[in-house]
Amino acid sequence: MVDAYAARRERVREHCGAAGADAALITRAANVRYLTGCAPCGATVLLTREEVLLALPDDLPPDDSGEHLIAPDVAQLPVSAGADTALAAAAAAVRLGVAGLAVEEHDLTVSRHRAVAALAEGARLTDLGQVVERLRVVKDEHEIADLRIAAEIADQALGELLESILVGRTERHLAMELERRMIDHGADRAAFPVSVGTGTHSGQPAHQPTDRRVEEGDFLTVVLGAQYRGYGVSTARTFVIGAAPAPWQVELHRLVFRAQRAGREALEPGVELSVPDRAARQVLEAAGHTEPSPRPIGHGIGLEIREAPRLGPADMGKLDSRVPVTVGPGVHLPGKGGVRIEDTLVVRPLEEGGPELLTITTKELLAL
Amino acid sequence: MVDAYAARRERVREHCGAAGADAALITRAANVRYLTGCAPCGATVLLTREEVLLALPDDLPPDDSGEHLIAPDVAQLPVSAGADTALAAAAAAVRLGVAGLAVEEHDLTVSRHRAVAALAEGARLTDLGQVVERLRVVKDEHEIADLRIAAEIADQALGELLESILVGRTERHLAMELERRMIDHGADRAAFPVSVGTGTHSGQPAHQPTDRRVEEGDFLTVVLGAQYRGYGVSTARTFVIGAAPAPWQVELHRLVFRAQRAGREALEPGVELSVPDRAARQVLEAAGHTEPSPRPIGHGIGLEIREAPRLGPADMGKLDSRVPVTVGPGVHLPGKGGVRIEDTLVVRPLEEGGPELLTITTKELLAL
Repeated sequence: MVDAYAARRERVREHCGAAGADAALITRAANVRYLTGCAPCGATVLLTREEVLLALPDDLPPDDSGEHLIAPDVAQLPVSAGADTALAAAAAAVRLGVAGLAVEEHDLTVSRHRAVAALAEGARLTDLGQVVERLRVVKDEHEIADLRIAAEIADQALGELLESILVGRTERHLAMELERRMIDHGADRAAFPVSVGTGTHSGQPAHQPTDRRVEEGDFLTVVLGAQYRGYGVSTARTFVIGAAPAPWQVELHRLVFRAQRAGREALEPGVELSVPDRAARQVLEAAGHTEPSPRPIGHGIGLEIREAPRLGPADMGKLDSRVPVTVGPGVHLPGKGGVRIEDTLVVRPLEEGGPELLTITTKELLAL
Repeated sequence: MVDAYAARRERVREHCGAAGADAALITRAANVRYLTGCAPCGATVLLTREEVLLALPDDLPPDDSGEHLIAPDVAQLPVSAGADTALAAAAAAVRLGVAGLAVEEHDLTVSRHRAVAALAEGARLTDLGQVVERLRVVKDEHEIADLRIAAEIADQALGELLESILVGRTERHLAMELERRMIDHGADRAAFPVSVGTGTHSGQPAHQPTDRRVEEGDFLTVVLGAQYRGYGVSTARTFVIGAAPAPWQVELHRLVFRAQRAGREALEPGVELSVPDRAARQVLEAAGHTEPSPRPIGHGIGLEIREAPRLGPADMGKLDSRVPVTVGPGVHLPGKGGVRIEDTLVVRPLEEGGPELLTITTKELLAL
């Protein structure tokens, strides 16, 4: 892995050189991790032509858990108590005589940028832009292996929940239990707060679990994802509680299932980013379900739970191979409930068998 | 509460007026909540002389949990799918003919600031600075009531844990259980990830729970806090596992206990911010425990788990009444373990009985 990090840093250096900067200041947490393997929030990387220097927040425990361990080829910068690591890195840049410093203007606040500029008087500040984010879009097989494990963990936790009694339990309890189970199965943590929606809450995109209890006849939508070695996945399933789903539930579930399948099947290297969204949306709209302001059907996923590319109706560009994305359409009928079905998949060419499904829990309408 | 929010907004308007701006763009989540009661992350408030306009991220569920409910006197701005709410608010500012727009440069990234400036061509952008953060320092009794409840919840969860079997369980499990218990007792969520450190991990400031299991003779340090209605507290306790603590454990615990008490007793309206830190530090240093780069003994706490004022050796300014702060010194002996004891208290004048202790779990060295 050390070599992988070094190779990634080399590509950032090439971008800097092309942009006339001789060093880069990396502050975005996911980018710091991508380039060094180092995870603590608040860390800053200074990448010069020859060196890679890491400024860690001073309040990290000395014998800290693995993910903060520093690779042998990464030098650590001194940071005084409570100090901004970006400023510690900027000071180092000055000491090293950096002339052009590329910073992440999409991550640095105006105030921090001003402080960095003031400290690095000599150096000319430029915008690195989303160079590292773009490098992160296509994953290597190590990264995909971590995503596979994250997906397995989420599937295991969900599978165990389905075997337990659900009626009478609150959305919050079910969400907490899923988070605990994912950690039991080896997740770093939940990739995002688990969402559990029952009854009228089911099928909502970003529902925060409430104290509503699961009742007979409810739709139950679960949106969860595990994070493993920094890499997260996201999956959503909708089930029905009780033996006999109502006809509208069967029908709505079948519709969203078909839309989600259409979206998945549209994933192919070289395809326009808007195509999977359109494929799924056409199925929903044919059945009369239109969104006033359409939510993208999915997005890239990896070190950040929502990263490039976005798969929305208006998104430009093409899908690449080895890009993990989510595909998760849904329909919510206010006051009634709804269905959401989401998977995380890796885009693969047909020769390799087409899109690789990571989240394999059944998408059938289970009656629990 | 609606009146309280309106009063807070009036004070922000006064600051804007003084700074020659006729509107403010509030993007920092805690500040948005402080001024509107509205909690979703990614929301932006546009505060003009007459109006308060709220731009919410488009992906909020329609019938969303209470904390996102919008006060009757707050108008909502349309935001299209995936759009930046700051830009939606800036567009509204243009429509309303705003001439001077004060923004939070400590929150807006350089890129967002540029986009806002481009959109609000006509308007002059100025820096609002930490005006809202300063307003938030002194709490009203409603806020303190919420903090009291948050502290009760954390104390309950901790109390229940102490009655359970600990030996053989992992730091991660204990941390998860504490988070679950806090939610069971009505917390919005844990105010921050619970830290459980055993053996050599005990006493560390920001220890991430590992799979290390609790053993006989361990020190066990728990750092936890609940969030209630957006307001968080923080508390830390250190216990010993097994009937007979070692002499060094008894001694170290007594020392940190004395240091923490000295810090607490130094809390008084009008006192210099550095005084509580010095009071506690003197006790530790007299016993030969010095920190290379001293961590502040505490900080303000409220809508953010770490907010102004900071109680560090070099911090300037004076404590005010009704300011909730943490006081949490600790000593960690590498390879051996350590002790950390932290409370959340509200600064009160002596006439009102002096500092109000919110986190009331015993600080005695319990042998569990």
